[in-house]
Amino acid sequence: MGDMKSGGFTLAIHGGAGGLPRNERIAREIESGLHGALDAGVAQLSAGAGALEAVVAAVRVLESEPAFNAGRGSVLSAAVEVEMDAAVMEGATRRAGAVACVRRLAHPIDAALEVLRDGRHVLLCGEGAESLARVAGAASLEPADLVMPYRRAQLERVLAGSDGNGGPGGGTVGAVARDGEGHLAAATSTGGIVAKRPGRVSDSALIGCGTYADDESCAVSATGEGEIFIRTVFAHAVDAAVRAGAPLPDACASALAEVERLGGSGGCIAVDAAGRVCLSFDTPAMPRGVVRAGTPARVALGPDDGVS
Amino acid sequence: MGDMKSGGFTLAIHGGAGGLPRNERIAREIESGLHGALDAGVAQLSAGAGALEAVVAAVRVLESEPAFNAGRGSVLSAAVEVEMDAAVMEGATRRAGAVACVRRLAHPIDAALEVLRDGRHVLLCGEGAESLARVAGAASLEPADLVMPYRRAQLERVLAGSDGNGGPGGGTVGAVARDGEGHLAAATSTGGIVAKRPGRVSDSALIGCGTYADDESCAVSATGEGEIFIRTVFAHAVDAAVRAGAPLPDACASALAEVERLGGSGGCIAVDAAGRVCLSFDTPAMPRGVVRAGTPARVALGPDDGVS
Repeated sequence: MGDMKSGGFTLAIHGGAGGLPRNERIAREIESGLHGALDAGVAQLSAGAGALEAVVAAVRVLESEPAFNAGRGSVLSAAVEVEMDAAVMEGATRRAGAVACVRRLAHPIDAALEVLRDGRHVLLCGEGAESLARVAGAASLEPADLVMPYRRAQLERVLAGSDGNGGPGGGTVGAVARDGEGHLAAATSTGGIVAKRPGRVSDSALIGCGTYADDESCAVSATGEGEIFIRTVFAHAVDAAVRAGAPLPDACASALAEVERLGGSGGCIAVDAAGRVCLSFDTPAMPRGVVRAGTPARVALGPDDGVS
Repeated sequence: MGDMKSGGFTLAIHGGAGGLPRNERIAREIESGLHGALDAGVAQLSAGAGALEAVVAAVRVLESEPAFNAGRGSVLSAAVEVEMDAAVMEGATRRAGAVACVRRLAHPIDAALEVLRDGRHVLLCGEGAESLARVAGAASLEPADLVMPYRRAQLERVLAGSDGNGGPGGGTVGAVARDGEGHLAAATSTGGIVAKRPGRVSDSALIGCGTYADDESCAVSATGEGEIFIRTVFAHAVDAAVRAGAPLPDACASALAEVERLGGSGGCIAVDAAGRVCLSFDTPAMPRGVVRAGTPARVALGPDDGVS
């Protein structure tokens, strides 16, 4: 998308690579959620907050929207429970925080940010993560309160074999940003895959797989068949290619080609230190949006709409 | 160490980067454990098993040795419990399996292998991992049975500030191998860091951080300040450098330099597709060993002993 003026910001988001929305109503819900997330991030950046705060604010909105598979809208495991993963990384310091398999929090991305700020560890799973979040002020929910009726119906369809892992709609969510000072950040949040084994950790929680940020290179948030994104260490593969001199679209394309080589599919969003953005996917759709300082936000779902 | 003959195997192991052993008795225990692990791996490779089976067999022995911080000898968390992490990866297929925060298993590396063989997910944490391992035949222990008295004393010293994270002895364990057919594999297992928060996941459990294997490049097992190995995505950084054409020692050195840039230290072992081995560390010691088909096994602890 070309270079940006120094001093301006860039924010990009995604709502999961997958099929086109099942119907118009879901498509409108997804678009509305994307706009809300971009607005929340822009509010942070316009007020002088950094890239880290902006990506967390954007993801936090998407975690509240039932159309996406994260936070409130998370899919159910084989044990008919929600288990959520999230990660956030700051490019300037390469500090990172992540949580996996949390069951009692409305906003896993807030817990991931708390792990980053705490600074002692990078990834906490289960009750250890929930406990740190509670100390930082997060409300503790009952796991049953996170089970949405439409997700229960979806799990039943998937277990009956009548729905390929849940069918089209919003998926994993993520955001990448370059702030006015040129710092980068990335954040990702997910409910994982329908009917997963309890305890399964997705690429979204894993620094270098679903999430990475490095001011000297780029910030990346990925979405797709998580196990293959782990095995190809997707986000770090993009980072390493950019560090080695590849243009951002080439770096994303070659990392996605590795995913395809192992039989997977998905997509990613990335922003580099110059504010160049890449939003790429090999699935029928990937809800996504981009906004730059002083320009209107643009969102899109399918492939041919100029938001890339 | 130069190329090897086609058809021969190479196996390298480590027992954790850290200080020199506290005393001669511990040094002998560590050396004995290293020899036992190399013997177990060689027994597999000589019988025609692949690199995957060999690295698991070697790590399994080190998990049984109380001198190392893995399996039986795992350090204690702030909650006075053992929580263990392990990962294994096969270079030919880039299939991988890993477990985090398991508390009821004698051999986390067996559970990681079971996750790999099951094939559905890559990383399982907590009870989900234990449950899969039990189905595959692993005995279920009581968490209290894994708490060793000397680890309780160590935790008390660390909490009292009289011992810097446990002092010298064996640490995290790992193995890398190239089998007679040229296939690679890597495995890592750890009890993590003394007085860690419950739920903390180490780099050892994370594909691309503490563990990676790729027949087209190399196999790596890392050890050190785990959070920084996650933030630099250490093992994949080595892999990416080798893929880009760097000699193995240069790839390991540059990945370790990135760790140092972020204030960390540690080491790694790696083997490439040609059977070249690199064992490097920036700490006072790293228990380690190497064996090749038809040559005697060599083990070492400190820096200046020709095993590199």
